[in-house]
Amino acid sequence: MNKSQKDFVTIDFERKKRRLFGETIFGEGKTAGHLKIAVEKILEYDGEVLVTRLSRDQYEEMGELKKTLDYDPMSKTAMAKREKEAMGKVAVVTAGTSDVSVAEECVRTLDFFGISSESVYDVGVAGIHRLFSQLDRLREADVIVVCAGMDGALPSVVAGLVSSPVVAVPTSVGYGAAFEGVAPLLGMLNSCAEGVAVVNIDNGYGAAYMAGQIVMKIYEKDK
Amino acid sequence: MNKSQKDFVTIDFERKKRRLFGETIFGEGKTAGHLKIAVEKILEYDGEVLVTRLSRDQYEEMGELKKTLDYDPMSKTAMAKREKEAMGKVAVVTAGTSDVSVAEECVRTLDFFGISSESVYDVGVAGIHRLFSQLDRLREADVIVVCAGMDGALPSVVAGLVSSPVVAVPTSVGYGAAFEGVAPLLGMLNSCAEGVAVVNIDNGYGAAYMAGQIVMKIYEKDK
Amino acid sequence: MNKSQKDFVTIDFERKKRRLFGETIFGEGKTAGHLKIAVEKILEYDGEVLVTRLSRDQYEEMGELKKTLDYDPMSKTAMAKREKEAMGKVAVVTAGTSDVSVAEECVRTLDFFGISSESVYDVGVAGIHRLFSQLDRLREADVIVVCAGMDGALPSVVAGLVSSPVVAVPTSVGYGAAFEGVAPLLGMLNSCAEGVAVVNIDNGYGAAYMAGQIVMKIYEKDK
Amino acid sequence: MNKSQKDFVTIDFERKKRRLFGETIFGEGKTAGHLKIAVEKILEYDGEVLVTRLSRDQYEEMGELKKTLDYDPMSKTAMAKREKEAMGKVAVVTAGTSDVSVAEECVRTLDFFGISSESVYDVGVAGIHRLFSQLDRLREADVIVVCAGMDGALPSVVAGLVSSPVVAVPTSVGYGAAFEGVAPLLGMLNSCAEGVAVVNIDNGYGAAYMAGQIVMKIYEKDK
Amino acid sequence: MNKSQKDFVTIDFERKKRRLFGETIFGEGKTAGHLKIAVEKILEYDGEVLVTRLSRDQYEEMGELKKTLDYDPMSKTAMAKREKEAMGKVAVVTAGTSDVSVAEECVRTLDFFGISSESVYDVGVAGIHRLFSQLDRLREADVIVVCAGMDGALPSVVAGLVSSPVVAVPTSVGYGAAFEGVAPLLGMLNSCAEGVAVVNIDNGYGAAYMAGQIVMKIYEKDK
Amino acid sequence: MNKSQKDFVTIDFERKKRRLFGETIFGEGKTAGHLKIAVEKILEYDGEVLVTRLSRDQYEEMGELKKTLDYDPMSKTAMAKREKEAMGKVAVVTAGTSDVSVAEECVRTLDFFGISSESVYDVGVAGIHRLFSQLDRLREADVIVVCAGMDGALPSVVAGLVSSPVVAVPTSVGYGAAFEGVAPLLGMLNSCAEGVAVVNIDNGYGAAYMAGQIVMKIYEKDK
Amino acid sequence: MNKSQKDFVTIDFERKKRRLFGETIFGEGKTAGHLKIAVEKILEYDGEVLVTRLSRDQYEEMGELKKTLDYDPMSKTAMAKREKEAMGKVAVVTAGTSDVSVAEECVRTLDFFGISSESVYDVGVAGIHRLFSQLDRLREADVIVVCAGMDGALPSVVAGLVSSPVVAVPTSVGYGAAFEGVAPLLGMLNSCAEGVAVVNIDNGYGAAYMAGQIVMKIYEKDK
Amino acid sequence: MNKSQKDFVTIDFERKKRRLFGETIFGEGKTAGHLKIAVEKILEYDGEVLVTRLSRDQYEEMGELKKTLDYDPMSKTAMAKREKEAMGKVAVVTAGTSDVSVAEECVRTLDFFGISSESVYDVGVAGIHRLFSQLDRLREADVIVVCAGMDGALPSVVAGLVSSPVVAVPTSVGYGAAFEGVAPLLGMLNSCAEGVAVVNIDNGYGAAYMAGQIVMKIYEKDK
Repeated sequence: MNKSQKDFVTIDFERKKRRLFGETIFGEGKTAGHLKIAVEKILEYDGEVLVTRLSRDQYEEMGELKKTLDYDPMSKTAMAKREKEAMGKVAVVTAGTSDVSVAEECVRTLDFFGISSESVYDVGVAGIHRLFSQLDRLREADVIVVCAGMDGALPSVVAGLVSSPVVAVPTSVGYGAAFEGVAPLLGMLNSCAEGVAVVNIDNGYGAAYMAGQIVMKIYEKDK
Repeated sequence: MNKSQKDFVTIDFERKKRRLFGETIFGEGKTAGHLKIAVEKILEYDGEVLVTRLSRDQYEEMGELKKTLDYDPMSKTAMAKREKEAMGKVAVVTAGTSDVSVAEECVRTLDFFGISSESVYDVGVAGIHRLFSQLDRLREADVIVVCAGMDGALPSVVAGLVSSPVVAVPTSVGYGAAFEGVAPLLGMLNSCAEGVAVVNIDNGYGAAYMAGQIVMKIYEKDK
Repeated sequence: MNKSQKDFVTIDFERKKRRLFGETIFGEGKTAGHLKIAVEKILEYDGEVLVTRLSRDQYEEMGELKKTLDYDPMSKTAMAKREKEAMGKVAVVTAGTSDVSVAEECVRTLDFFGISSESVYDVGVAGIHRLFSQLDRLREADVIVVCAGMDGALPSVVAGLVSSPVVAVPTSVGYGAAFEGVAPLLGMLNSCAEGVAVVNIDNGYGAAYMAGQIVMKIYEKDK
Repeated sequence: MNKSQKDFVTIDFERKKRRLFGETIFGEGKTAGHLKIAVEKILEYDGEVLVTRLSRDQYEEMGELKKTLDYDPMSKTAMAKREKEAMGKVAVVTAGTSDVSVAEECVRTLDFFGISSESVYDVGVAGIHRLFSQLDRLREADVIVVCAGMDGALPSVVAGLVSSPVVAVPTSVGYGAAFEGVAPLLGMLNSCAEGVAVVNIDNGYGAAYMAGQIVMKIYEKDK
Repeated sequence: MNKSQKDFVTIDFERKKRRLFGETIFGEGKTAGHLKIAVEKILEYDGEVLVTRLSRDQYEEMGELKKTLDYDPMSKTAMAKREKEAMGKVAVVTAGTSDVSVAEECVRTLDFFGISSESVYDVGVAGIHRLFSQLDRLREADVIVVCAGMDGALPSVVAGLVSSPVVAVPTSVGYGAAFEGVAPLLGMLNSCAEGVAVVNIDNGYGAAYMAGQIVMKIYEKDK
Repeated sequence: MNKSQKDFVTIDFERKKRRLFGETIFGEGKTAGHLKIAVEKILEYDGEVLVTRLSRDQYEEMGELKKTLDYDPMSKTAMAKREKEAMGKVAVVTAGTSDVSVAEECVRTLDFFGISSESVYDVGVAGIHRLFSQLDRLREADVIVVCAGMDGALPSVVAGLVSSPVVAVPTSVGYGAAFEGVAPLLGMLNSCAEGVAVVNIDNGYGAAYMAGQIVMKIYEKDK
Repeated sequence: MNKSQKDFVTIDFERKKRRLFGETIFGEGKTAGHLKIAVEKILEYDGEVLVTRLSRDQYEEMGELKKTLDYDPMSKTAMAKREKEAMGKVAVVTAGTSDVSVAEECVRTLDFFGISSESVYDVGVAGIHRLFSQLDRLREADVIVVCAGMDGALPSVVAGLVSSPVVAVPTSVGYGAAFEGVAPLLGMLNSCAEGVAVVNIDNGYGAAYMAGQIVMKIYEKDK
Repeated sequence: MNKSQKDFVTIDFERKKRRLFGETIFGEGKTAGHLKIAVEKILEYDGEVLVTRLSRDQYEEMGELKKTLDYDPMSKTAMAKREKEAMGKVAVVTAGTSDVSVAEECVRTLDFFGISSESVYDVGVAGIHRLFSQLDRLREADVIVVCAGMDGALPSVVAGLVSSPVVAVPTSVGYGAAFEGVAPLLGMLNSCAEGVAVVNIDNGYGAAYMAGQIVMKIYEKDK
């Protein structure tokens, strides 16, 4: 029964070989002890690390590691990143201002992976001319990530106007019958425009990963 | 225990006094016997009658009454209608061709109530230019009824572009995760554009009633 | 990665041209920074502004803007309103005392839009004589908004007695199996009386917008 | 592995001693073989038998037993009943004509148990004067069973007007968002009028059993 | 817009005439102001009052009225009660110790209504001999109220052993897949033993009301 | 694009080495072509085969293989089985007669695996003495499989009385609010008696597999 | 009221310009009349056409067009395709044989779009060595589409082993608690391996479209 | 109305005779008073006691009993245990570090019951080589308990590789669409590998009990 903290953590060190991007840490619900061990092990092995879903309180408990990690409260992410040249272009779009924290988790993760992104925020279908005025920027993107709560209608409209793949992220934004993101999740899964695939509610990180893999496929062909 | 068929039906003869429109009949699940009694009683009292959700098989069993009733298989409605002058203008919009049977239930009900309608079909957001080319017609309407399945995104887009009230009808059209209309229902309840109110799944009749009441309010003020 | 707060907000300044009523602000989940920018931009452009779902704590953080904004804790709304002549008449009805905060969000929004309202509160079907004693007031209204939790039965009863359109607002009031407003939402969507359309759970603002659009349609015909 | 049909059925012969009413048979999904064994065993022991949820096809396959059993297609019940004096008074109410088959299952079961009932059908809240004109009959009942689909609002209204216990039966009647009886079930569980308890969707038999037990309690005190 | 607190409350003073028991107050979510008005009005009219779902904090804010009201933290009820002779006998049963607060809300409400009760607590089916040792007490009851969380199996077992009507109360007790009372709610609605009717999750008050009405029916026949 | 039927099937021939029992075939939704290939391949490799969820129509289309396979319509299983000595003892219990087809799928699968079973059918909690009279047989079993629909209460009661592990199988039996097995599934997951683990709705085969693995573990220790 | 069939269909002729792939037809629920009009219009404009979810009965009613369309009953697709050179490589994987019809809808759609695919069928995690023996083929793919029902576990395992983006398609295959594809849908949205995005239940067509867009992005960079 | 605290607790003292393991205490929601009575009674009778779901705050309120009880904050369990020789071997596996608190509740309960366990943590399918490197340890276990959140895919993979029974515990770990454990619960119930049975969400205790009963069956045969 005498376990040390280290018995609870098994780092997947070989991930980068198999999967392009190395292992990252999902902070939510983890104790300061577990977080520190994971951060240190990955830093040692990969020379860089990304932590997502990290509350300010959790960050504050990380002691010495705080100096190493760049923390952003809007996206709740902390990272130490090695220099790398940015590649590709992902457009990150939101329907409203309330979706921005999810979008920024996506933007920061892309940055960590070495992929360029461009933010197109608060252009939901209630005032659709805001979207049309940004259409050129969207059409130039390799991949488009769209974050939306409420009716989740924006990815359908965007996908109908472009030829790039759209990764849709439902957000837990809205009145009661949005059911913490269920309404936009269903809307996105049922997009009447093809070319939309969906990740988990509020999962800006997952959208970045999917978009990142597509960008890598596009540019590795160039080599 | 000796009930006659008539014991099962209590017609609300005074509805027209209270509610502008008289009682109508929801056909689904009713036996031929119940249907005939209801149709006859209302015809006798009001001089006209509308039956909704009436399958062709049910219609065929109605004997002599078939001559009196005009049956439309697309909308599954039958009616005998007194002459009346048409009033107002309701735009009835669909996202796809598969939503048309619901829209036609709405159109036929409006016609029965003496209200004009205009159909704008198959203009969903996957090809949004189809909607924009009809915008003038929509902007002239007193009320707009929008029928959509899948993501239910169309009412949000329409409402964002007009000043008329939008009555949204989710339809049970779509792949598995549309859950027989739940996805568009939630989408419409969570419309990011204001000015949308929702009726039951596939309930073209209910949308017509709501739209009809609004039209009556508008034109009774003129008198 | 150097975004200012303003990058997160795209105001829809042309909304009033398209939609009768100008853009308003949904306060919930927004930071003080985002709120201030949005309030200031809209005030500058429209000369008036409405914020809904604004907690007292959020309001207290708004600094100088507190003087400009009239805050009402019951409805959680803040507004700065230009003088305008009130028009029409919307009856705002509740089933119980617990539904009053939602109803007041509706009443305040109507007031902001320049539309008169009359409150008929705590007249649920458990003591239905309370409703009957108010029937004349209801019958004089252009539109009736009904807020109810629990069984959501009140809109059905009201709609069966009047000829005005009924906008129903489910509230998150009730014991466990009300599921935070799902029970009244379903009740209202399935209203056995026609002429009911439904908005989101606790969405008094949305009901006011829908009712407001109907009132505007009625009175613009008079001009 | 050589089971006879009889191995699948264990009759609860002592039920009448414990529970006032003897065992009955739920027909749905049972093979003709199982049904015949169960009917014969109970007839032999109790001298009477009730089968519910028995389709006409199942009934037709019962051979000789058809002569013994009185089959009613509206309620899908078959019974052989011993003479007994009727006791008490249960009012069985429906909101619409489509709820009648459930109500008749209740009425037939009460009759089998030797309890009087009175039917008050098609008096839903869409035309509430139909209910008020029957109020005296309702107030004389020992127990009131209310069957309703759609919004399930009728039990709330009835319970608010009487002093008898109300047993509510949600029915699977309605448009899509009634979800096969879920909407009225939730409405009834959340009745804003007290004195309502609920049984399963379409379970007219269960309502009769509950009502019957209450009636027996009332009249056994007289002895 | 100048409403006083009294505009939010419409007391149903005639309830006792129609319904045997007078109006009571559901405390949850009400402000101290609304609570005081309601308590005072009912006390003045009926000479007694019951408040349910009243947190200790709400009670502490009631000022002078605290002296008049007897508060019980376990059941979260406060009451001022006129002398009356107790009548009938309701057995109030729980499956576990965690269901006791719901059961005590039932017991206190019965006491307020002038009905005797007997508590049989912590006798769930995991150790079914505990139930069997109490069977005589259960069989003497006019009505049995059974409160259970988790699997909600106890009402089925109890109903199978007695001839009294069983009112079942699902409680929000259990691990994750109990879904705050949904699992026992469904279990009780699907009771394989007949003679069970169900009230809302954690609604001890509603069970007391239903049981009370049945008891009143039994004893008024004696007069 | 020229695939033969064989391209659709990849048999897991090495399963028996890893898992004690060899691969079996889930018949539902498979074409006659796919079924025949799978049966033949497994027969060739293992010398025996079990097909579950095989409708009589599917069986009739299997041509020559019909002679090899022993088909049982009650359990919808077909098998060709090598001689083997039976081992252990599994009690297979049902709450009602309608649960028997699921139980027989379990019994037939156990027989195929070479494990003895004993059937204890129709002993649900509505008449709990039926269960008590079988208690000795249950207590002698190595494992107990309990199949129940409706409230799913039986596994809780059984587990509270024995020391053997209980594998619970919810069945899709019951009135509307059983939701095709969801009610008993939740009941079983929330069993107030410990020592219950649950398999999928109507999955008699899966229960047999789980029970079979436990029996094998018990008897392999004897060797 | 005199609409012709053509009024129900608005073809999006410009789709190919905006979106790489032209408009296709979702056959389910469409009448023969609507289908023929749509097929003819698109054939005339694009010189090729794809119809999905087309039952054999619907196909048989298409008259002369049957000669033009190549119908495949396994995937329920019909197409007339112009010659084009195949590009890229998509691996289409299934967990079981029952998922094959969905996979073939994907394969046929890719073929129509001019994209190469390779089928890796029946390699679910119950016998995970079947997957490992195909790993090289998977690692060579530009995109991997994984179709799985039941637990939907396969996409997680695949994504953990490769660097290509994975498009996951839940299928409506499984026992009761799979809820027609909900279980694998949730499993896939919650994939513990990153790089998975999800389309609608049984939507092989949508997966092909998403995969096709990614492939086009990869190879257009080469030009 | 004068109940003492003891009236709320009925200990099942004979459980050990019937069920191998004695009664334990579920701490959540219990008051300090109820907890102390229960702990003392069981300690007196059994000489040992286990409390699960006990927060540190609850533990701190237990006064003198704190000395007797060994509290572990990770698993939220407290116990006083008699000496006993450990028996059997249960492997307790987790998919991630966040599942560890549930796993430790299982480990501590097994320890209390006198059963040996071995922890294999953080070996989820995203990096499946971590699992393969532990396969020998898993294959030696009598029973395997697998705790996983998110997609709940791990039990399927494990069960496909071993011959021991697998008890699966869904955990409430994951992004929004995990719905507090519903996603892994459904995944596990639908495991495509046979030999998996499921307990409630986060119910490490229940898994230990099930595993413990299996172990006891295995080793009692040896005697």
